[in-house]
Amino acid sequence: MQFVDAPKVHQLLDYSYLIESLYQAHLGPHPETQHVVQQDPQRGQNQFVTLVGWKLGAAIVVKMVGVFPGNRYLDPPQASVQGLVALFDGKTGEPRLVADGEAMTFRKTAADSGLGARLLAREKVERLLVVGAGGLAPHMIRSHCTARPSISQVAIWNRTPERAQALAERIKLLNVTITATGDLDRAVANADIISCVTMSDKPLVKGALLKPGSHLDLVGAYRPSMRESDDQAVTRGTVFVDTYDGMDSAGDLFQPVQAGVIDWNAVVADYYALAQGRHPGRTSEDEITVCKNVGGGHLDLFVAEALFNRL
Amino acid sequence: MQFVDAPKVHQLLDYSYLIESLYQAHLGPHPETQHVVQQDPQRGQNQFVTLVGWKLGAAIVVKMVGVFPGNRYLDPPQASVQGLVALFDGKTGEPRLVADGEAMTFRKTAADSGLGARLLAREKVERLLVVGAGGLAPHMIRSHCTARPSISQVAIWNRTPERAQALAERIKLLNVTITATGDLDRAVANADIISCVTMSDKPLVKGALLKPGSHLDLVGAYRPSMRESDDQAVTRGTVFVDTYDGMDSAGDLFQPVQAGVIDWNAVVADYYALAQGRHPGRTSEDEITVCKNVGGGHLDLFVAEALFNRL
Repeated sequence: MQFVDAPKVHQLLDYSYLIESLYQAHLGPHPETQHVVQQDPQRGQNQFVTLVGWKLGAAIVVKMVGVFPGNRYLDPPQASVQGLVALFDGKTGEPRLVADGEAMTFRKTAADSGLGARLLAREKVERLLVVGAGGLAPHMIRSHCTARPSISQVAIWNRTPERAQALAERIKLLNVTITATGDLDRAVANADIISCVTMSDKPLVKGALLKPGSHLDLVGAYRPSMRESDDQAVTRGTVFVDTYDGMDSAGDLFQPVQAGVIDWNAVVADYYALAQGRHPGRTSEDEITVCKNVGGGHLDLFVAEALFNRL
Repeated sequence: MQFVDAPKVHQLLDYSYLIESLYQAHLGPHPETQHVVQQDPQRGQNQFVTLVGWKLGAAIVVKMVGVFPGNRYLDPPQASVQGLVALFDGKTGEPRLVADGEAMTFRKTAADSGLGARLLAREKVERLLVVGAGGLAPHMIRSHCTARPSISQVAIWNRTPERAQALAERIKLLNVTITATGDLDRAVANADIISCVTMSDKPLVKGALLKPGSHLDLVGAYRPSMRESDDQAVTRGTVFVDTYDGMDSAGDLFQPVQAGVIDWNAVVADYYALAQGRHPGRTSEDEITVCKNVGGGHLDLFVAEALFNRL
């Protein structure tokens, strides 16, 4: 039994390795997962989520994660999402590793989007726009730049411009220029890949501005009430998801379906269909691809296995 | 975040401390727990159980345990029950400890029975009989001898007598004589406390033989089809449980209820009622007390908290 702390998780799960691992995992079947959500017995807003997955003959993975929005107001502040991921041998039940949950979640989410770019973005893209400058943003930059090494310019937009500026100054990537931008519409119109990692409740990216051939990666808006893109994004673009499970909670799909703008058949494929060649993905250089990163316990399972294979 | 391995769990959770901790915990409310059971996708007999409990304002505990009966036939053999217990701060979700699951389960189960003896057995008992010589048996001896330090003689009976003999030779307790016995009926008739820790499917302890004033602790028979005592045990004795949750799966209660020998009202109190003085427990020196150790996620929560408080 080995404990893998956050720095070690980040060191072992570089995006090149992790995106390839996720790709390989999507060549196989979708593992079933179950989850339990417990509400804080005292204050309704906190919750604790436990996900359990068992991959045929391989590993059993349990992800335990507390979501405590008030943590950032503590002195000193703590991450609002903390937890652990545990992996057990699927043939004996023997505990094999326990890893830092926050680091595993960052890596999982960013590699999930990176795999989306690998499967759907044009080969020779140059400009990445990241919308949002929170904890996930630096991971999204690294993951997309790994999936598409031709990216040479990264723009960061954030509601609070200072945070975009600070992030742009902090991240260094070889042969990549990283800058903050205050003009979201202009940045959207210029971008080849747009990755949204916000907690926004209303559309930020206007579909009308999307460049032909661009790829829109939607990571926030995990609840029906949340939104990062407008209706035109999903009507102009061909819509994909990482997984169908849970996509009905994603505001960027749920809201246009509710409004009758699209129906669920507008979602043409998931990563399994793309990786296994059952759907061609992008079919022209001008096509706009929109991919909703839904996430899910199967990815926690894949990432934990990838980590175990590197120990 | 601290990892507590099996030797450290055993060292920190001595039965004197742990029985008192469980007693104190039963003075408060019963924490709600949820669980998820996953079956082996390949072979139906293996399963993986995840229990989650959240104690008001205190701790969140997740117990993860694999049950793989075939492990003992591996070369080298492995424990058939393995796992981990994780504890998180109930106010922030921060991971605080991960502990060896097998050690925590042994300690929990034995302390649960020890608390039963403390609440129900006569004060000055001398003879303990342990029925079964598996992994739990040495813990039961230590826990009961802690709850009732007047015990001076321990007899061990096992279906395979050699295992009882080996266990009797292995355990050393100050001022306690430990011997194996081949005559179960005679040992039952002599005992003040009888603790059954078997996987038996048919009654072993005959109620007719129970000595007036004795205390019968039933730990195995967690499934409706299993059985450690006969109908007379529950008709002659006053019946208690550690917890009502899940008692309907216990064969020693389920079967006599199904047969119409007793009804569920025969179970007069749980540990909460006993600890909080809402039920007097034993009311005479001649009364026979029968206590079904049902177990449950609330105990995993209490034990994990007790461990955390000792770090």
